[in-house]
Amino acid sequence: MKIVGLGPGNEVLITPEASSVLAEATDVVGYVPYVERVAPRPGLTRHGSDNREEIRRAEQALEMAADGRRVAVVSSGDPGVFAMGAAVFEALEAGQPAWRALDIQVLPGVSAMLAASARLGAPLGHDFCCINLSDNLKPWALIEKRLRLAAEADFAMAFYNPRSRSRPEGFARALAVLREACGLDRPIMFARAVSTPEERLRVTTLGEATPEMADMRTLVMVGSSLTRRIPVDSGVAGEWVYTPRSVV
Amino acid sequence: MKIVGLGPGNEVLITPEASSVLAEATDVVGYVPYVERVAPRPGLTRHGSDNREEIRRAEQALEMAADGRRVAVVSSGDPGVFAMGAAVFEALEAGQPAWRALDIQVLPGVSAMLAASARLGAPLGHDFCCINLSDNLKPWALIEKRLRLAAEADFAMAFYNPRSRSRPEGFARALAVLREACGLDRPIMFARAVSTPEERLRVTTLGEATPEMADMRTLVMVGSSLTRRIPVDSGVAGEWVYTPRSVV
Repeated sequence: MKIVGLGPGNEVLITPEASSVLAEATDVVGYVPYVERVAPRPGLTRHGSDNREEIRRAEQALEMAADGRRVAVVSSGDPGVFAMGAAVFEALEAGQPAWRALDIQVLPGVSAMLAASARLGAPLGHDFCCINLSDNLKPWALIEKRLRLAAEADFAMAFYNPRSRSRPEGFARALAVLREACGLDRPIMFARAVSTPEERLRVTTLGEATPEMADMRTLVMVGSSLTRRIPVDSGVAGEWVYTPRSVV
Repeated sequence: MKIVGLGPGNEVLITPEASSVLAEATDVVGYVPYVERVAPRPGLTRHGSDNREEIRRAEQALEMAADGRRVAVVSSGDPGVFAMGAAVFEALEAGQPAWRALDIQVLPGVSAMLAASARLGAPLGHDFCCINLSDNLKPWALIEKRLRLAAEADFAMAFYNPRSRSRPEGFARALAVLREACGLDRPIMFARAVSTPEERLRVTTLGEATPEMADMRTLVMVGSSLTRRIPVDSGVAGEWVYTPRSVV
């Protein structure tokens, strides 16, 4: 079984390794919009399922692999970053002992975080952290604690799943914590659907940011205290943002 | 000018976007071993330079781009993670005003961190941080502070540049801080030269880890308090390591 990262959206960011695995697969398993990124062809069955169905989906994939199918479990971006990698190993650990003999391989991909960072310059160019802002699977208090400690460590920060219809208030609370911990002038970046036709980029400050600037398809980044903005005549956002390599 | 990520080493992990830019470039600029990953061909000049020459190298690349050359600045992995991205923007900000009109694009790549994580399972499957352990450009006290705060936040951690001949003692100090903050049983992973013929993977605990397990080509990862090891009959390290998505 292969656990495959499809990259952030554009075909030119899918690794040749992933493409060749997808060309050989008999079954592709994943969240509906990701499964639909794999073109239909004879001999391929696409198994799309809903969000929040990750463990059931992982079990289904392991069952099919144990039956001898060539299964590709697909995620957007990289499978190891808030994606199907952890779900498959969770299902494997709790599941049938025979699954532990399966030949499994994880194929890395260009994560949304790296693609968003590249579009804007190099905002994660020095020490950084990456936090899932969804409180579906962890208490809000832990998210807030991590935000405060990340600010104290002066990490640049990347946030996945900042906001959804079922959790409209979480991101406003995160912004409030960040304003208090990092100040109003700190750069914040919103990178929506990077590398797709729906891409939208915005650079502003914590003081100017509003919760509506993010949705579920937005990768949010906050600079460290050293992060710099360079106004330019080029660049997709009219400026470049980078975090210097040096703190001396 | 393009700032290009070559991925961790294997050609099957270079994005088609990066490959097509390299095929069109007149000049490739970078650290010698990375420049050598681009095959020579008529019409291409390869400009290899030493480690720690990043700013001079970035200036040279910007100068050539301003002269109308099709320049590709190459980094291993992703250019935005402890690589040439930040160096180029630093040189751009401090350099000639005309450089701000240059058409620059950053092409993301599969970082060593994501490739190493994939080989071992999904150790960065939940909130994590990424720290450069080199104290060339920042004081050791800041590294130690970040390690302690990252442990308090219970992040999984990825470390670049753990050890070099010029800084043999730093990684031993990092291990001591981590043992104190995370305990002796916490999983630690050493992933050297991932995806190349020199790849070497090892999973152990902080209690058993020694500084010699890392060198400059090693990506080191430490689990969070929830990270799990699954013994299996397959997998490149005889076990899978993953950090669950849920903390409840």
